Amino acid sequence: MKSEIVITPRYSETDQMGIIYHANYFPWFEMGRTDLLAKIGFAYKSIEDMGILFPLTEGNCKYKIAAKYDEDVRLVTKFGMLKGTKARFDYEVYRVSDDVCLATGFTEHGFVDKNLKPVRLRRDYKDLWDAMESSYKESIE
Amino acid sequence: MKSEIVITPRYSETDQMGIIYHANYFPWFEMGRTDLLAKIGFAYKSIEDMGILFPLTEGNCKYKIAAKYDEDVRLVTKFGMLKGTKARFDYEVYRVSDDVCLATGFTEHGFVDKNLKPVRLRRDYKDLWDAMESSYKESIE
Amino acid sequence: MKSEIVITPRYSETDQMGIIYHANYFPWFEMGRTDLLAKIGFAYKSIEDMGILFPLTEGNCKYKIAAKYDEDVRLVTKFGMLKGTKARFDYEVYRVSDDVCLATGFTEHGFVDKNLKPVRLRRDYKDLWDAMESSYKESIE
Amino acid sequence: MKSEIVITPRYSETDQMGIIYHANYFPWFEMGRTDLLAKIGFAYKSIEDMGILFPLTEGNCKYKIAAKYDEDVRLVTKFGMLKGTKARFDYEVYRVSDDVCLATGFTEHGFVDKNLKPVRLRRDYKDLWDAMESSYKESIE
Repeated sequence: MKSEIVITPRYSETDQMGIIYHANYFPWFEMGRTDLLAKIGFAYKSIEDMGILFPLTEGNCKYKIAAKYDEDVRLVTKFGMLKGTKARFDYEVYRVSDDVCLATGFTEHGFVDKNLKPVRLRRDYKDLWDAMESSYKESIE
Repeated sequence: MKSEIVITPRYSETDQMGIIYHANYFPWFEMGRTDLLAKIGFAYKSIEDMGILFPLTEGNCKYKIAAKYDEDVRLVTKFGMLKGTKARFDYEVYRVSDDVCLATGFTEHGFVDKNLKPVRLRRDYKDLWDAMESSYKESIE
Repeated sequence: MKSEIVITPRYSETDQMGIIYHANYFPWFEMGRTDLLAKIGFAYKSIEDMGILFPLTEGNCKYKIAAKYDEDVRLVTKFGMLKGTKARFDYEVYRVSDDVCLATGFTEHGFVDKNLKPVRLRRDYKDLWDAMESSYKESIE
Repeated sequence: MKSEIVITPRYSETDQMGIIYHANYFPWFEMGRTDLLAKIGFAYKSIEDMGILFPLTEGNCKYKIAAKYDEDVRLVTKFGMLKGTKARFDYEVYRVSDDVCLATGFTEHGFVDKNLKPVRLRRDYKDLWDAMESSYKESIE
C-alpha cells in the first residue's frame, strides 16, 4: 500500500528564483506520510493522542527539476524501512502535467513519547505496528 | 520603553515577485515583541513557563514599500494598548540603508492559560503586569 | 460569485501553543483568492504571465477560535472592494466539523507591473477588470 | 575558512511537538552559507546580480537532539566539496548553552543562470571560483 496525493504548490512556497523553495518539500512529505498513515487506519492526530510522536532523525531530498507555482505535483509515499525503534518513509514527486519526476526524498523517524523518550511500538502499540508492518511489506514486494 | 532590532530578510522569506512574502512580516513582529518583553524582564519563554500564553486576537500589516532579500530592516516595537484582558503591540519596519518606513502593523493578544482560558494578568501576575504597564505608559507619553 | 475551498491544516503550520500559527492564515487567504480568480477565468499564474502583480498593501486577520492541526477548515473568499487602482478580498474561515467561524480577514492589493509600477486595470486589461467587477457586484448584492 | 553564526530560534519555527519543526533547519543552513559566501567576498545577492543562481540539487539533515524555541544555536558552515559544476556545503548546529551538537547536514548546489542552465563557474566567473576554492581548500586541511 502506498499513498498518492496531488498538491498544488502555493505562492507562499515560491522564492525569488521563481521556483518552489527547497525546504517546502518537507511539509509536502509530511502530507504524504500523514495520508499514508490515515490510509492504514491511523490518523497522525490519533497517534499523537495515543501519546506517540514520530520526530525526524533524518530528512533528505534530491531535487532534479524545479517545481513551480501552480503546477500540480503528485506525491507518492511509501514505507522504505521499518524497525522496532524507527521507520523510514520514501517519497517521489511527479509533475502532474507530464508525469516527470521532479524530486525524491526520504525521512527517518524515531518512535517516542511526549517527553521524547523512545517507545516500543511493536510491543506496546501492536495495532499500529501491525498496520505499519503490513504496509511496509506490501511496498517491498 | 520600546524595542529596536535589526533583521536581515532571509532568502526563504522571498517569493517569486522578488520581494519578502507578506505573511513573513508577522514572524518579524513576533521577534519584536519577544525582544520588548525580554527588555522589561520577561522572556516570552519564561512567560510560557508561568503558564501564560498570548495568542493573537488580531493581526494587521500595512505594506508601503516592499522589503527585499538581504536589505536589512529595523523593527520598532512598542505597546499600543494595555487592558486587563488584552494588549496591543505596534510595529514599524524601516529600511536600514535610508531609514524609509516600509510597513507598519499591530497585533492584539489575549492573556490565556495553557487551556486557552482567559487569565487575569493584573490580579494574578502582578509583576508581569506592572512591567508591561510601565512600558506602555512610557510609550504613550 | 464567491470561492469556497476546504483546507486541511498541516503539521508544519502548528506552533508549540498547539494551534495553527497565526501568520499561516495568510497563505490560506492566498489560496482562497487564487481560487476565486481562477473561478472568474483568470488563474493567478496567467495574470502574472500578463505582467500584472497584486502585491498586498494591507493584510488583516481577526482570530476568534484557534484552528487546529488536521481539523479541516472551509475558507470563503469574495471581493470586498474594487477600485481602479486596487481591490480588497474578504475571507471567512469556518471549522468544517461544526461550521463555527474561527477567523475573518481581508487583504488589500494594488495592481502593478513587474517593476511594481501601478497599472490601470480597467483601461488596459479590460477582460480581467470586467470579470473582477462582475464577481464584486454579485458579492455585494 | 568557515562561517559561525548564532541563531535564535523563532516561535514561528516551532511545531506542536514543542520543538523546532524539522524543515526550518534548511533556512538556517541558508543563512550559514550566505554568511560564508559574504565572508569570502561575495554576498549571495551580488552573485544573483551577476546572473548566477545556486539551486539545491540535494538537501540533508540529521537530527540528533531537538532544537527548542529561544535556545540559541550556533551554526558552523563550510565547503564540503567543490567541483566545476557544483558545490556542497556542510553544516553543524550546536546548542549555545552547552555546546552539544544538535544536528548536522549538507546541501549540494548546481551553478546555473537565471534560466536554470548550467554555468561554468571556474571559466566564466574566475574571481568567485577562486574565492570558493580557497575557502574549500582551507576547510579540508
